[in-house]
Amino acid sequence: MDKLNNIGGILLDLEGVLFVGERPIDGAVETIRCLKEKQIPHYFVTNTTTKSRGALAQKMRMLGFMIEPEEILTASSAASAYLEQRNPVSCYLFVADAVRDEFKAFPVSEQTPDFVVIGDIGPVWDHKLVNRAFQMVMSGAELVALHKSKYWQSPQGLQVDIGAYVAGLEYATGTTAVVIGKPSSEFFEAGIQALGCPKEQIVMIGDDIDSDVEGAQKCGIRGVLVRTGKYREEIEAASSVVPDAIFDSVADLIKVLDI
Amino acid sequence: MDKLNNIGGILLDLEGVLFVGERPIDGAVETIRCLKEKQIPHYFVTNTTTKSRGALAQKMRMLGFMIEPEEILTASSAASAYLEQRNPVSCYLFVADAVRDEFKAFPVSEQTPDFVVIGDIGPVWDHKLVNRAFQMVMSGAELVALHKSKYWQSPQGLQVDIGAYVAGLEYATGTTAVVIGKPSSEFFEAGIQALGCPKEQIVMIGDDIDSDVEGAQKCGIRGVLVRTGKYREEIEAASSVVPDAIFDSVADLIKVLDI
Repeated sequence: MDKLNNIGGILLDLEGVLFVGERPIDGAVETIRCLKEKQIPHYFVTNTTTKSRGALAQKMRMLGFMIEPEEILTASSAASAYLEQRNPVSCYLFVADAVRDEFKAFPVSEQTPDFVVIGDIGPVWDHKLVNRAFQMVMSGAELVALHKSKYWQSPQGLQVDIGAYVAGLEYATGTTAVVIGKPSSEFFEAGIQALGCPKEQIVMIGDDIDSDVEGAQKCGIRGVLVRTGKYREEIEAASSVVPDAIFDSVADLIKVLDI
Repeated sequence: MDKLNNIGGILLDLEGVLFVGERPIDGAVETIRCLKEKQIPHYFVTNTTTKSRGALAQKMRMLGFMIEPEEILTASSAASAYLEQRNPVSCYLFVADAVRDEFKAFPVSEQTPDFVVIGDIGPVWDHKLVNRAFQMVMSGAELVALHKSKYWQSPQGLQVDIGAYVAGLEYATGTTAVVIGKPSSEFFEAGIQALGCPKEQIVMIGDDIDSDVEGAQKCGIRGVLVRTGKYREEIEAASSVVPDAIFDSVADLIKVLDI
């Protein structure tokens, strides 16, 4: 744990780190409470794009975490911030209804938007929508993807994720999408800005060795892997990524911080 | 046009080169008639996978082109030949009804086919079908694409083509599709064999700078781009592909061949 001294700020993933499904990870609620009591700067970064920050915070509170919406960076809120920097813009949204509010500041153009935002619309995708996104990008719109995951695990097995549509649109239009969520550097940078402390003092804690740990390290901050959520020993063993530390769970933070 | 001497055989794309929609390109009918009169070896190679060779020849004849089915190589006829080499196989077809007959020799499996064949089903694509193809490939099916075109020209403008779905499935499944039609070398090689003359004497004429021109060049024959069909000046300008020549239309062939 030598690499974990001088911690001035902490970025934390949500799903798999603080909870799985509807169940908090053992010790996670106490850990977050402790960070707040000791006023250690922390901020939550998640690729979840089917819930708004408000709905996420509400869920977290029901699980016992006293978290405010403003403490969470989601891929959709980061996308909104990305667009805001380019104000004024028009956009067209392929996103879940639950996160449309994040983009309400931007006028929608049905024909020639400046930005096309691809999110989780799941079974709603059809050829007409794919073609519409294609034509908008060919007409000059910038392609923005909330994330580029390949698949996700449902109770019915693996399901194709929005990465398929993002990759397909990139191929057909000959462009490269701006991918907003982890592991993009911009996403981590936004989290780092929110913490307001130097990079060398920051650690990111996540259960995904690629998106969370490697992404953090590429951005110049330390990456800690937890053995909860989607963690699998064989994935860690096969990976070329070397986490700065591995925790049995997020609860190890208390020991490391000696608080 | 220096690069266009010593022409002993010509491969020609159909849609966008000889016609758009139901309208022949100006001078195209006369050009093909001239090639036939002067007995200059030529052969038609098309990624069109919504019509059988017979139906295509019939359409061409209605437009004034005296073309026989045997003069046309389609991606679906080539795909059928590819599967036949691997006989016996089960497959699942995402292809147009009009070309299903090309695959009638192969038993269909709804669950775990050996091959998933992606063709032109156009507006029928939806998330359920994308997910079904994804799950079949994840279960071990080989992904076969009739072609991987990015877009096609309709009277209503550029439309996204099946390359978007093929590329998306490749990304999500972490596999590489066997691409049957242009720009695959096997497809061009079949056309070259049909012409029966040395590669250095052959030119390919098409409106797609990637599938037609680059594909031909990678196969060792010359690639000529026409400024008709899906041609767009900005796409040509942005491309790293340098055609051996650019024609205003296929009718320029007459001048180049001096016939």
